[in-house]
This record gives sequence, C-alpha cells and structure tokens, in this order.
Amino acid sequence: MDYPFLRACRGERVSPVPVWLMRQAGRYLPEYREVRGKDDFLTLCKTPELAAEVTIQPIDILGVDAAILFSDILIPLEPMGMGLSFSEGKGPILEPAVRDEKDVETLGGIDPDSDVPFVLETIRILRQELEGRVPLIGFSGAPFTLATYMVEGGSSKSFMHTKRMMYAAPRLFRELMAKITGVTKSYLEAQIRAGAQAVQIFDTWAGILGREDYREHVLPFVQEIVAHLKQAPDIPEVPVIYFILNGGHLLWEARESRADVIGLDWRTPIADAVKALGKDVVFQGNLDPCALFLSEERLKERISSILEQGRGAKAHIFNLGHGILPEIPPDKAKLMVSLVHELSA
Amino acid sequence: MDYPFLRACRGERVSPVPVWLMRQAGRYLPEYREVRGKDDFLTLCKTPELAAEVTIQPIDILGVDAAILFSDILIPLEPMGMGLSFSEGKGPILEPAVRDEKDVETLGGIDPDSDVPFVLETIRILRQELEGRVPLIGFSGAPFTLATYMVEGGSSKSFMHTKRMMYAAPRLFRELMAKITGVTKSYLEAQIRAGAQAVQIFDTWAGILGREDYREHVLPFVQEIVAHLKQAPDIPEVPVIYFILNGGHLLWEARESRADVIGLDWRTPIADAVKALGKDVVFQGNLDPCALFLSEERLKERISSILEQGRGAKAHIFNLGHGILPEIPPDKAKLMVSLVHELSA
Repeated sequence: MDYPFLRACRGERVSPVPVWLMRQAGRYLPEYREVRGKDDFLTLCKTPELAAEVTIQPIDILGVDAAILFSDILIPLEPMGMGLSFSEGKGPILEPAVRDEKDVETLGGIDPDSDVPFVLETIRILRQELEGRVPLIGFSGAPFTLATYMVEGGSSKSFMHTKRMMYAAPRLFRELMAKITGVTKSYLEAQIRAGAQAVQIFDTWAGILGREDYREHVLPFVQEIVAHLKQAPDIPEVPVIYFILNGGHLLWEARESRADVIGLDWRTPIADAVKALGKDVVFQGNLDPCALFLSEERLKERISSILEQGRGAKAHIFNLGHGILPEIPPDKAKLMVSLVHELSA
Repeated sequence: MDYPFLRACRGERVSPVPVWLMRQAGRYLPEYREVRGKDDFLTLCKTPELAAEVTIQPIDILGVDAAILFSDILIPLEPMGMGLSFSEGKGPILEPAVRDEKDVETLGGIDPDSDVPFVLETIRILRQELEGRVPLIGFSGAPFTLATYMVEGGSSKSFMHTKRMMYAAPRLFRELMAKITGVTKSYLEAQIRAGAQAVQIFDTWAGILGREDYREHVLPFVQEIVAHLKQAPDIPEVPVIYFILNGGHLLWEARESRADVIGLDWRTPIADAVKALGKDVVFQGNLDPCALFLSEERLKERISSILEQGRGAKAHIFNLGHGILPEIPPDKAKLMVSLVHELSA
C-alpha cells in the first residue's frame, strides 16, 4: 500500500500530490476513439479486454497516479430489470421509467458474479496489467443519482418526476432508494473482491436537493453503503471517495457519509471546505474542467491556487471538479498532470 | 409606494410577508393555456393585450402580492441580431450561435421603443389595469445568462462553448458581455420608464461559475447595470432584485451587485445567507418548486421554516426558489400563497 494515491486517501500528505481525472479514459483521447472504433459505448463497457485497454491509456499518456475502471454508473440498472441504451447526443435512456409502486416492485437485486461478470473480469485483467504501476479505482453511482435516471427515464433538467415521487410518495421513494442501495452495496463489494483498491461513489445529482431533503432522503443510504464496505467480512478495507457534484451546501452531510475522501467540484473552494469542516478531512478536486481551455500561464495559476488550498487539508488528491470534456486537447490534460506534479514536488 | 411588496424591497418588515412566484403566469394555469390557445409562446409575448391578460391571471387566481411582466429573458436578443425560436420540449434556439470575433461584431444594440415596443406597451396596459391592486415587476436576463444562450445557441448542460470563450478568448468574451450589458441597461431603463415599479435580473446560469471567474467575468457587468438604474436621470428609482440560481457560493458577490434584494434558490437556507451577509439584507425566496408536491401538512412546515428564517433578515419576500413547474396543480400554488399570508400575519 505505498501508492501515493492510496496514501493520500488514508490521510497522509504526499509529495508530489497525486492526480487523476474523472472520465480520464474517454473521447478526448484519439487512442480511445480508435479502440472504440465502430462499437457502441455499452459494447465497450461489456468487453473486458477493450475496457481494460482504454482504462490503461491515460496512465501511459497522461501519467496520472490512479486508474479508474472504464464503465458507466448505469450498468447495474440493466440487471435490475431496466432497458438501458445510449443515444448519441441525447444521453442515456432508461425504460420503462420507474413511476409507481408496481414499477418499483418489479425491480430486482443483482448478483454481480452472474449479472455483471464483465465488470469484475475487467478489474481482474487490470490488476494484473497495472500491478506495480498505479492503483485501480472502482466506482458506482450513488443511490439518489441512480434513482433520478430510473425515475426520469434518463437525464433531466428539473428532476420533476424524481422530486415528485420523493415529496408526494415518500415511502415509495424510500423503497426505491433501499433497493438501489442493496444493489450498490453488493456491486461495490464485488468490485473490491475482484481487486478494486479504492472506490468512488458518484452523486452527480444530489446537489439539486436542499439540505433538509438530502438528510432525510439521501444521506442514510450513502452511510449504509460506506458502513457496509467498511464492515463487510472477508473483503479488504479500501478507501471510499464520495463526490457530490454541486454539493457546496452539503459539505457537512458529505462528511457524515463517513467516506474517507470528499470530492469537491470547482464551485467550492477547498479553502472554504477546510474552513467549514476543519483540517482533518481529505479532499479531492477541484479544477473547473473548462479551465483546461485557459492559457498555460493562467492554468498554472489556477493549479497553484488549488494546491495551496489543498495544503490546508489533511491530505489532497488533485482532480477536475467534474469529468474531462471530449473537446479538451489531450496535451492540455497532460500539461495539467505534469504541472500538478511539478508544482507540488 | 405603500404596496407591501415594494415596502419589503426597501427593507421594511411587512406583515403578512408579501409573496409572488417566479413564472406565476404560465402553463400550470388552465386560464393561461386557454388564452394562449394555438398561438406560439413568442406570439403571446409580442401581443400586448394577451401578455397583459396572462400577467394579471395569477393576481386574480392566486392572490399574489406582485405581478411580473409576462415575457422572456431572450426577447432582446432578437433585435440584437439573433434568430430566436422555441421548439416544444427542446427549449430555445438562438442562431447563429456566437462563437468568434465576427459573430460578436455583428451584434447590435437595441432601441427599446422601436425594437421591443410590445414589451413597453404591455407594461403601460398593465399599469392601468393593476393600479391600486399590486405593483408590476419588470425583468431581464443578466448578461452572463444571456451570453450562455447566445454562445451555446440555446440551452446547455456543460456550457462548454461559453466557458471556452471565457477562458480561451477572455477579451472577446468581455466584449460580448459589454454589448449585452449595454442592451440590458437600456432595456430595463425603458421598462422602468414605461411603468415597471421594480425589476428583477435573472442570472439563471451564473451559478455554474466558481467565485473567481464570477468576480472577474460577471460581477462588474451586473454592478454596471444596477448602478445605471440607480443613477439614470429622469427615471424613478425602483428596487432591483438580483437572482442567481444555484448561487449559494456567490452570496457575497450577489451582495456586491448592490441590488436591493437578493433572490435565493432552495439550496441556500435563508438562515445561512443571513449568517453570511448579516441582518441588513433583504432576501427573496426560497421554497423548492417541487415542494408544492408535498402534502399540505409538510408544505406548511416548509413554509413556516422559511418564514421563520426570513424573520432574521432585514426584510423577506416569499417566493419559490425557481419558476413554478407546469405540472403543479393551481390549487396547491393558491394554498401556498394563502399559507404564507396566514402564517406570517
């Protein structure tokens, strides 16, 4: 366990500061586009050799300090009983949308070994191929974020259907959250058994909720997952990262999840988070993904400022505040990684 | 000037607390749908008699304490030289998208009297019809929010094109912001001359920016508009409300705009805003629009809590934290208004 990334997750200040990028394996890399070729996104996720290959690309190309499994947070929803497809430009489609009691009832649990064997196989291949280089991060969506896709039937702007269920049928919503939580627990546990050395829980949409609603409808389920991963017998204890996009108003709550690392987006300065939560918290983040369009000079200033703020925390892992965009020139991402290393050495 | 809403804008504690709803004239009202009939949205905006009629509907139906001009923030972009259309379900389309120097250069200023006479005529009709009942709020989009629509060519999720211009071509972006600011100044000034008794500046998308970017690229332009409205000769001095959606991390900045009232969405508890900015600020907000799906009992609890927090501020105007949704039953909106009045009497 002496990978710098894992040491930082455990609360150790590491120099240089470890760095990886959300969606670091992705369309901005020509090498990724070449592997994907004519395959659709889901085929790539479900073909272990290819998924492993694109997972490794940014390690070679950018020099990041961790690999993250190439997959999608929506993968476990298919074996739960939902139709899943991706239409170019329109985002994911989940059908039929989960709206009433009957819809929730028909959703099943999953057995990761038989339902998502390709994910576990990808992890096993990666552990062999990465050994001695960088650690491997597994991941899942958080229950609320997955619930939004299931209830809306895909992406949304207002999340009206999700909030309507939460407000008008709170018991049904809780039942749905409990089902997703059960799936997420076994899914992440299976990833850890297969070899994931850390896991990140992505709560991309929890930031749409006010604090009161988050505490009532979301936090208990995230806590249940984190506690499960920390207590489950026979699995190695690995660091858990919890990332809420747009969660500046939910800092205390993120902390109460008891995850080891709190991910921040670019709207919450690390210095503010340190001020709010104290110096005993490990933060991950938080360059605006679009800041990779800045000139080299101004990019350097931004990175320096984030690193400086990170020095106030217990430990810091550098990352973007959200996934890297397809339009970013790979050289700029590479420059970012080397600037982080250089400026924090 | 003894309308409760205007007194609260000026910092006076008013009982009962005045209340209105963003998008209170809109699709959730059957009466609105009837007036609109087969006309498209833009035709309705551009026909003063009809726009005035739907503006007044919620005053009669809900009993709110202010009317807000029925219009759209994108209206002034058409006379600036952009094609504007609304496709049902897909949102607005602005074309051609503003991407380079040439695009910015071709954008013109506007003369409200000749370019948007229908807006001013709607205001004049409304002032006659509303006199003695409730005051009339005019409005505009804030420059950054308008810039996102112009640069993206419509709505967006990542706002990549806008941020790319801001980061990669900051001078060009500033030029664009300056042009929009000039238009917004004369547009709001014309509304006030025509009779608007308060104005709200909607910064729906500024919340996507970190504080540093907001301060550099957005705040100076908002300040310029507010200062202009306060100093312009020969127009009555009216209260200015500045609303940033998702702006919990920009509270200090919102205050620095020098607007009279700061609008909050449901993610920023008024109590937190009071704690951050002190007791000398007037706040407007901030019930989650989806909370209108709650049971009456729980809705009442939410409203009580918001009113209680509002009592800590210099003054409070009750509102939703964003526009009312088309799916809300009008009776629930009506219930909300009467609960606000009843609980704060």
